Amino acid sequence: MSEELRLVTCTAPVNIAVIKYWGKRDEKLILPINDSISVTLSSEQMHAKTTVTASSTFLEDKIWLNKELQASSSRLSSCLEEVRAKARQLEAPAVNPDWKVRICSENNFPTAAGLASSAAGYACLVSALCQLYGIKGDTSILARRGSGSACRSVYGGFVHWKMGERADGEDSRAFQLHPACHWPEMRVLICVASDTRKKTSSSTGMKNSVQTSQLLKYRAEEIVPKRTLEMIEAIKEKDFSKFAQITIKDSNQFHAVCQDTYPPCVYLNPTSHQVSSLVHQINNFSGRFVATYTFDAGPNACIFLMEKDVPKVLGLLKYFFAEGDEFVRGEELPMEEATEAETSKYSVDRIAGGLKYVICTRPGEGPEVLAADQHLLNNQGEPKFMQ
Amino acid sequence: MSEELRLVTCTAPVNIAVIKYWGKRDEKLILPINDSISVTLSSEQMHAKTTVTASSTFLEDKIWLNKELQASSSRLSSCLEEVRAKARQLEAPAVNPDWKVRICSENNFPTAAGLASSAAGYACLVSALCQLYGIKGDTSILARRGSGSACRSVYGGFVHWKMGERADGEDSRAFQLHPACHWPEMRVLICVASDTRKKTSSSTGMKNSVQTSQLLKYRAEEIVPKRTLEMIEAIKEKDFSKFAQITIKDSNQFHAVCQDTYPPCVYLNPTSHQVSSLVHQINNFSGRFVATYTFDAGPNACIFLMEKDVPKVLGLLKYFFAEGDEFVRGEELPMEEATEAETSKYSVDRIAGGLKYVICTRPGEGPEVLAADQHLLNNQGEPKFMQ
Repeated sequence: MSEELRLVTCTAPVNIAVIKYWGKRDEKLILPINDSISVTLSSEQMHAKTTVTASSTFLEDKIWLNKELQASSSRLSSCLEEVRAKARQLEAPAVNPDWKVRICSENNFPTAAGLASSAAGYACLVSALCQLYGIKGDTSILARRGSGSACRSVYGGFVHWKMGERADGEDSRAFQLHPACHWPEMRVLICVASDTRKKTSSSTGMKNSVQTSQLLKYRAEEIVPKRTLEMIEAIKEKDFSKFAQITIKDSNQFHAVCQDTYPPCVYLNPTSHQVSSLVHQINNFSGRFVATYTFDAGPNACIFLMEKDVPKVLGLLKYFFAEGDEFVRGEELPMEEATEAETSKYSVDRIAGGLKYVICTRPGEGPEVLAADQHLLNNQGEPKFMQ
Repeated sequence: MSEELRLVTCTAPVNIAVIKYWGKRDEKLILPINDSISVTLSSEQMHAKTTVTASSTFLEDKIWLNKELQASSSRLSSCLEEVRAKARQLEAPAVNPDWKVRICSENNFPTAAGLASSAAGYACLVSALCQLYGIKGDTSILARRGSGSACRSVYGGFVHWKMGERADGEDSRAFQLHPACHWPEMRVLICVASDTRKKTSSSTGMKNSVQTSQLLKYRAEEIVPKRTLEMIEAIKEKDFSKFAQITIKDSNQFHAVCQDTYPPCVYLNPTSHQVSSLVHQINNFSGRFVATYTFDAGPNACIFLMEKDVPKVLGLLKYFFAEGDEFVRGEELPMEEATEAETSKYSVDRIAGGLKYVICTRPGEGPEVLAADQHLLNNQGEPKFMQ
């Protein structure tokens, strides 16, 4: 008897933290030592896409990530088991939680290069599985079990991950502050650095920081709580100057904590520092906050700015850091070639090829369920790429 | 009538802080926000040398630094005026403090490249002037008025600058913990990075940090006091493991504070980070603390280690960071060429020419008074280099 498989395909977006998550108080449950706030980016330019299915005929769970069959990882299994446990609590789960699953996932952007791929990946996995079983309500707690920052990718727009207080982590979840349409003028430039090797993984880095950095403890307890409230206010009021300044300070403080870690973890490269310096100088010369930057655990700058300022900033980024053509990718936005009169004002080291390219995007919505023609698995639960 | 000029020539050493001074509570009096501890380096390899004289016939103060006549600077004048004020309190100053002075000073190492040149320079100036006027006792308070860290260069060996409590700064002075002979096995490798441009001066950087870094306040108030006591104990016990670990942590925390500053100040370059990483790996592979590093406001690493470990560490530094010959300067110490079996263990980016050279030296004594044949000024008070 050929059973009809129930297939679900979702996309989930990347999110960029403007108040950083760095440090767990519980490694197993992935409970953070402070709140964080992020902006979810449009799935148009960057997303994870995942198809899931389950069947009584499958003998084992199988997971393909970017076309490679994955060995079981404790993170992946623990995340999957959490979703199944939740499904078993349902009166009538849409599919049997005891059945083995097939999961096929891909990102349309480089993995593990500091582009928040695991956040999108786990948010997508959890969203698809919840859809498969018929789990309703908040999915951020489940996504958190895969990768902490994934919990923020289950909501669109501006998102607040509250650290919570409970030992079981049931109050450590994400909340949407505002949907993406709240700040329609906002644009985002993801500056992809050429040297994207990640020397210390985020998990290892933050574990070392928690164990060795005295500054991290102070940051988490004394600085972030106030800064989080200020950031919520800045977003609510669409006060870009305030948003920009807090974003820069929090990114730099996170990298300060990395430097204070024993041994130090260094994620920024010379191009990163020059991009930062360029943004400070643009703001100084303009007499207002034109742009703001933030760096995750990697050298790629993420620049937030208003649509009207994109042409000028893109032009300066190209002048100082581009090498070949095809420098600008993603959403088509106008660029203004920088004039010599303009560039000569800047005290920035020109690093040709320091950036590989810039992805233009904007804030966007949370995970989406796609139509059947988008499935990555066929009706036998085999990946279509293998056909 | 041709008056006989009284000429005094001194040298003063460089010092390297192992508990860092970063931040003033009083900009004018140069009072720090925390204690610091340093090691004075031997004057054999690196020193400032200064000749001073005074005469009723001079119409103005004149100062030559590294063969260039200096425009009056507020630091220089304030330091000079402090010494004169002190001389006026003497019952019988050796020369009249109201007379104008001639000062000629030179360093035998690059100025303003993060090699503590101003510390040696001001310590030397003050030592020579005190000798000229006949001022006895502690000179560190006077040296502090020129450049904060200069107060530590008026003593040899291991030195503690106590921040003090008084508003007038009269208790903010240096004390010798131990003379250089206390730890005779200690050697010092000054790793001079190729890119030695200093982007933000120490004065500007620390001022920005005090104004904008919340982490600095916590560091100064909560972390440094305990760390200072631990470092004093480590030096007293000649416990290199403890000395090494605190030195690394304090250097990294200082650079963390720089990164937390708004706008961030970045003093380390990619070679700096690779030198740090090499030291951590040498220690890990050896199963003990072989070496420790510290960076001031520049990219040059200062490595402390025991004499027996110098050959191996020099060999690895040469393998990873040298380009041409003449890599090793200063005191002649044996080097062991690194074998491939050894170097292949390391995960360090090889940066040929990342270091220009390494100066080998050791802890040394404080300022010295030199004989008449060493004067930089002639009997008319004119610089000899002008003759």
